Amino acid sequence: MATLEFWFEFASPYSYVAAMRIGELCAKSGVDLAWKPFSLGPIFRMQGWETSHFNLNPLRGKYMWRDMQRLTTKFGLPWHQPTEFPRNTILPLRVAAGNADEKWIGDYVRAIYVASFSEDADISQPEVVAEALTSVGADSTAVMVEATDGARRSALRANTERAIELGIFGAPNCLVNGELFWGEESLEDAIAWLGPSVGRQPPELRR
Amino acid sequence: MATLEFWFEFASPYSYVAAMRIGELCAKSGVDLAWKPFSLGPIFRMQGWETSHFNLNPLRGKYMWRDMQRLTTKFGLPWHQPTEFPRNTILPLRVAAGNADEKWIGDYVRAIYVASFSEDADISQPEVVAEALTSVGADSTAVMVEATDGARRSALRANTERAIELGIFGAPNCLVNGELFWGEESLEDAIAWLGPSVGRQPPELRR
Repeated sequence: MATLEFWFEFASPYSYVAAMRIGELCAKSGVDLAWKPFSLGPIFRMQGWETSHFNLNPLRGKYMWRDMQRLTTKFGLPWHQPTEFPRNTILPLRVAAGNADEKWIGDYVRAIYVASFSEDADISQPEVVAEALTSVGADSTAVMVEATDGARRSALRANTERAIELGIFGAPNCLVNGELFWGEESLEDAIAWLGPSVGRQPPELRR
Repeated sequence: MATLEFWFEFASPYSYVAAMRIGELCAKSGVDLAWKPFSLGPIFRMQGWETSHFNLNPLRGKYMWRDMQRLTTKFGLPWHQPTEFPRNTILPLRVAAGNADEKWIGDYVRAIYVASFSEDADISQPEVVAEALTSVGADSTAVMVEATDGARRSALRANTERAIELGIFGAPNCLVNGELFWGEESLEDAIAWLGPSVGRQPPELRR
């Protein structure tokens, strides 16, 4: 079965829109979905940025917030512009990276995104992460101890190192058969690369 | 009749893909198309950039060139990665800005883009611009004199000043009813904002 790796950051607004849609898109297309949380901070610092480019470039930032209003309306997603941006996402990302194969991972990812981008919750706080875990049926205490002090603590760092190897420079991304698709608007193109329509790709673009 | 303003730069690869598609999309949707060439150089310099961000950020640049291969294949457009990037586009932009209402403007814009992104021609050169003009049935000598030394010389500067007023930070863009849509992937959303489906936009997002 074909697999799509979804590389995302909880700080990224466009990753929110994509994360809310990717599960259903993959299911409809018969594509296995692998959740790949990573940290954008080290990647932005490699590009010389100390914060999000949406803060560094105010015109780009203003456009993005308006675009988020339109996109969440278009896709019927809840939306409230966060009062803090970007949020510290290390804790919820560590939990996601350490539990990417759990049956509740998709629900957890969506719960964290909704907390941040619709409920304006501070997802850096343990109680917010714990609440999200409980809401999706996970043992929140055990999961958080394991992901922050236990054997699963290194999973986020490994993902971020892999993201750097892949040439990832932003979020979200879909990786399909070694091919990287960046941006929430390229989900369908990524699935088409894998799905029934892949046969219609010209040979020189196939891998 | 609804109007879509298409704000573009000949240096911009994504504007190439969009420019090749926007005429047909507008015609199909019964939308008037206004060609709005502007210069990205002053806008990039306002952002502190001395060249394209695709050069300043090599990861982003490498991704863009691969994305252009995929997008031109997807839309059936000719493609050859330019050996010089970005090119100096002042001359062809001046000609476009000074003649935006001519009946040959769409054909001229597409001819310049194909010259740069498929034929690897140096579109800063007068003979390349003249050839494009002749190929679309314009009086190339008269048009070029008027656009570079004549009364139409200031049209490009006026467009660029207007682009800055609009908050434009990149290219391409569609402006519809005061609403800005950036990026080649948002053409359909821009048209939907205007077209029959505009009635389905929730009232709080309409202008």
